[in-house]
Amino acid sequence: MNDKIENCNPGEEYYQAVLRSVGDSLYAIGGKWKLKIIISLFNGTKRFNDLQRAVTGISPRVLSNELKDLELNGFVKRKVNTEDFVAVIAYELTDYSFTLEEVVLALSSWGEKHLETIKKSL
Amino acid sequence: MNDKIENCNPGEEYYQAVLRSVGDSLYAIGGKWKLKIIISLFNGTKRFNDLQRAVTGISPRVLSNELKDLELNGFVKRKVNTEDFVAVIAYELTDYSFTLEEVVLALSSWGEKHLETIKKSL
Repeated sequence: MNDKIENCNPGEEYYQAVLRSVGDSLYAIGGKWKLKIIISLFNGTKRFNDLQRAVTGISPRVLSNELKDLELNGFVKRKVNTEDFVAVIAYELTDYSFTLEEVVLALSSWGEKHLETIKKSL
Repeated sequence: MNDKIENCNPGEEYYQAVLRSVGDSLYAIGGKWKLKIIISLFNGTKRFNDLQRAVTGISPRVLSNELKDLELNGFVKRKVNTEDFVAVIAYELTDYSFTLEEVVLALSSWGEKHLETIKKSL
């Protein structure tokens, strides 16, 4: 037991906490699509078809399921607009989704630099 | 066509660029495990078994595949230490992995706050 304590780097606990918190993030917004759907709605309300066009490669079935999940977890609101006697369904972000701004900017900035790095190495 | 241009919100192009860059990030370090493996190595070299213990829930087979992938893409180095007549294989991060620090900190910080929000709502 003593041996274990002596071998324990003081920083390890910190990184374990970071790992747990990042795990909590990935549990909520990880996966292939959730963050992309949220980003596609950052600029305002979108209808299902516009959303599908914005999130390249997503199938209607998967988009539908992801939207239900995002709604259930408080990231997206479904708006039914019945003006002009036609029901138009659109999706918009909750205020909570905007707490993801820093995460999105960090990922966007890194992705941009990463692409440059890849291009240079070719 | 004119109709399309008039409807075009000036911010949309910006968000599409963000979406593409985040997509590039997710392509490189997205998925269930890659970022968690990288974080587990932030504090220094680890052997396979220690890494498996640190990344809760990962199977040896998946860890092995993910490590190969991370090595191939320049995030992780495999070190073979042959001191004491025993070959010890360990994994360590490349300098490039440390460019992910801001991404990791943003995800960690959000995850921490998210957990608090969830706890309060229960």
